[in-house]
Amino acid sequence: MDTDDLRRRLSRDLDPEMREQPGLSALNQGIVGLIVFSILMAVAETETALVEGHTWVFDSLSLVLFVAFGAEYAARLWIAPLNPRFGSSLRYARTPAAILDLLVLISFLLPLLGLEAALLRMIRIVRLVRLARLGRYSLALQMIGAAVTDRRYELGVSVIIASGLMLLSSTALYLAEGAHQPENFGSIPRAMWWSVATLTTVGYGDIVPVTVTGRIFAAVTALTGIGIIAIPTGILAGAFSDALRRARGRGD
Amino acid sequence: MDTDDLRRRLSRDLDPEMREQPGLSALNQGIVGLIVFSILMAVAETETALVEGHTWVFDSLSLVLFVAFGAEYAARLWIAPLNPRFGSSLRYARTPAAILDLLVLISFLLPLLGLEAALLRMIRIVRLVRLARLGRYSLALQMIGAAVTDRRYELGVSVIIASGLMLLSSTALYLAEGAHQPENFGSIPRAMWWSVATLTTVGYGDIVPVTVTGRIFAAVTALTGIGIIAIPTGILAGAFSDALRRARGRGD
Amino acid sequence: MDTDDLRRRLSRDLDPEMREQPGLSALNQGIVGLIVFSILMAVAETETALVEGHTWVFDSLSLVLFVAFGAEYAARLWIAPLNPRFGSSLRYARTPAAILDLLVLISFLLPLLGLEAALLRMIRIVRLVRLARLGRYSLALQMIGAAVTDRRYELGVSVIIASGLMLLSSTALYLAEGAHQPENFGSIPRAMWWSVATLTTVGYGDIVPVTVTGRIFAAVTALTGIGIIAIPTGILAGAFSDALRRARGRGD
Amino acid sequence: MDTDDLRRRLSRDLDPEMREQPGLSALNQGIVGLIVFSILMAVAETETALVEGHTWVFDSLSLVLFVAFGAEYAARLWIAPLNPRFGSSLRYARTPAAILDLLVLISFLLPLLGLEAALLRMIRIVRLVRLARLGRYSLALQMIGAAVTDRRYELGVSVIIASGLMLLSSTALYLAEGAHQPENFGSIPRAMWWSVATLTTVGYGDIVPVTVTGRIFAAVTALTGIGIIAIPTGILAGAFSDALRRARGRGD
Repeated sequence: MDTDDLRRRLSRDLDPEMREQPGLSALNQGIVGLIVFSILMAVAETETALVEGHTWVFDSLSLVLFVAFGAEYAARLWIAPLNPRFGSSLRYARTPAAILDLLVLISFLLPLLGLEAALLRMIRIVRLVRLARLGRYSLALQMIGAAVTDRRYELGVSVIIASGLMLLSSTALYLAEGAHQPENFGSIPRAMWWSVATLTTVGYGDIVPVTVTGRIFAAVTALTGIGIIAIPTGILAGAFSDALRRARGRGD
Repeated sequence: MDTDDLRRRLSRDLDPEMREQPGLSALNQGIVGLIVFSILMAVAETETALVEGHTWVFDSLSLVLFVAFGAEYAARLWIAPLNPRFGSSLRYARTPAAILDLLVLISFLLPLLGLEAALLRMIRIVRLVRLARLGRYSLALQMIGAAVTDRRYELGVSVIIASGLMLLSSTALYLAEGAHQPENFGSIPRAMWWSVATLTTVGYGDIVPVTVTGRIFAAVTALTGIGIIAIPTGILAGAFSDALRRARGRGD
Repeated sequence: MDTDDLRRRLSRDLDPEMREQPGLSALNQGIVGLIVFSILMAVAETETALVEGHTWVFDSLSLVLFVAFGAEYAARLWIAPLNPRFGSSLRYARTPAAILDLLVLISFLLPLLGLEAALLRMIRIVRLVRLARLGRYSLALQMIGAAVTDRRYELGVSVIIASGLMLLSSTALYLAEGAHQPENFGSIPRAMWWSVATLTTVGYGDIVPVTVTGRIFAAVTALTGIGIIAIPTGILAGAFSDALRRARGRGD
Repeated sequence: MDTDDLRRRLSRDLDPEMREQPGLSALNQGIVGLIVFSILMAVAETETALVEGHTWVFDSLSLVLFVAFGAEYAARLWIAPLNPRFGSSLRYARTPAAILDLLVLISFLLPLLGLEAALLRMIRIVRLVRLARLGRYSLALQMIGAAVTDRRYELGVSVIIASGLMLLSSTALYLAEGAHQPENFGSIPRAMWWSVATLTTVGYGDIVPVTVTGRIFAAVTALTGIGIIAIPTGILAGAFSDALRRARGRGD
């Protein structure tokens, strides 16, 4: 097998647009696995209890991943001219996907240079999204995306309604509880922390109203929170139901 | 350009009903931005840590906003006769929208007079809603409003069911926990605070049952809370789904 | 106006089945108002801070309500023969509705005899449900009832699935946390309190896992809780959507 | 009645596939009742406060259940040859259902041998699922299963989105709160416990952000949590709505 054959085969295996069959090639599946593993490693590395005494394990694995992703990056540059959408390696290197891959490579080098970069390492998550778009999950993501986009104004209005309610309930609690709990409700921005936790029904309970007036306002806020959840859920439910019906043909 | 021309142009820019194109004019977009900014400022002003040492910033910005909104109010009065719905400035001044705008103007003056008026300043939120009704979000708001109105009796019944369940669970917890936690469950109104937090699945955890009987009643309440959320969500989902189908034509 | 005329008029006003127009008569609307008031009073009476020093107010109001509901009960007995469904006052007196009304009357007498009966007083809530079924809300209640009944097996299965998941997560947390928190997770029934709070996403936080294994199981439980809420919500949403379409005619 | 007649009758009563009528036979209903009872007993046995002084009750009931389930197991082996799907007792004994039944029998013997096996006893739950599939609930379970399967890719994508958001919010809180609360947010895995509790809207409140930055990130996470719940709920609502319409015929 000569170099050109290898390049064409690699192109079909690495670039989903060059692949005849639908779905993800075995090579890309392996890369997805490596990406997931690299994310888990980046997560684990922040926990000193896990790293302590095993730094050599993490360092070795980082090196292996760096080499693997480096090889992948080089291979993608090499096969780029075969895809008519890029034409040349340089044009591919300037795509957001390629820049992201380069940043991920750099993120492996930073800790070796003694630099801490938790956020940069989290770019690996974004890479996952890029690959998750391929294969069979692509249609599902497109459907979810289309349903959300289709109702963007309805969702936007429900965000505006929710923001307004959050401001009103923060103001109410600031007036009712501000004097009793200045630390927690002494200003509207402070009361907002409680308001978000209540309207989303998270309800941490670290900050709660203690006066009767405050609790009545809080009860109204909590009940309103059901609507805050019900409205976007209802909008999306209608959108998904509709998206599917359209996908199955207008005759249904 | 003479005065009449300016007035007509201003009318087209300020009054969405006089505008030929759909959507919000650049001038109204700027006003929406100012309103959002004035709300954020009203919120920030309640936090002494932010205001301290920067009172002159807040005072100057208040003055700027007062002048801007005053100019807007005056301009709307001036152009009102051009809109056949109002005819005269006086009739416009008596509309709820104009009265709201006047109240907002007054809310800017109150702090200068040394009066604290958090609630009055929050009227600015209502203004946002009024403007959010314009432009592209108008249709989305109408759809949400129509879906909610369409099912008002179903939503009303689910409120009655929820109220009944709240009373029943408060009574149950009052009977089960009243003797152990008189402060929290010593009467039905006291138990209601816990009941609202549980049925809405907020669950602050500031007040929880400690007896076995109380916990069994609480578990039933928590499970019932799923229905309390599921029923209005289901009603709204059906309503949104239906509203969209109608909007796309009955042939679908 | 002679006695027979009064009786017939009263029958049309009190008995919705004898009324020609749809909706609730003015008299029945007044009775609904009295019932709501009597419920609120029963709730308020349990709070000693409200009753103290105002016992005469509560006693007088109780007497007024007792007389009013007594008169209503007597009137309903009197007009019963006019409704062909009952035929005689005795047959009406044996219906569940009439027995409930009698129990409510007794509940007013008990405190006068020095007996405490919070639960019995709560029967008044059930009365509300009976009257809420009348008038315009009747159709809404029927629609909700039909949608829930229509999917009773799906909802039943989702209850079975939820119960199974609750048992599994309780067992998992009992095994993971039992040794560390014997008070909270020392047995499966104890762990269930935590499990219900988590699966319903109430999340009081009075009892939380502290070990790594326990937290991993708890995270899985919390994520499963989304399904526990999503499945009945989805079932009901589909049912409501379908019920409305049927109500509007199959041609849609 | 000779042995063959008894065997055939038992086969019709025990094996739903050999029964002419739909629904669960009286004998199988009794077995379902015994299974539910055995699960409740297994749960109760872990609570020492209940067992203490009543060990003989639990031991006797265990013996009764062991004998009953042993008899059922033997009977199912005996009647297996009558069902053409098995042909012989040995082939039936090798089915997962029969192996599960055998494991449950063993789980009754373990405590008698002085071995603690909470997890093994919980296999009884799985048995319930197997029997719940029979009778009228079978169709409901199939519908739920079909709706979930039908949208597995959409649900899979929403799991991927949720995981990504969980990682992002954990990283954000680790960066914002790590220095202030090293015990709770000192690493990404530690921050995940908080992140799961917030995104699922459980909100225990045992760990909460205290810095302003942390609270802003947490508010965004809590609001995102609404989408995390709304998207799968919407997908399932659409799926259930569609599944029912298909079941009622494509003409609707």
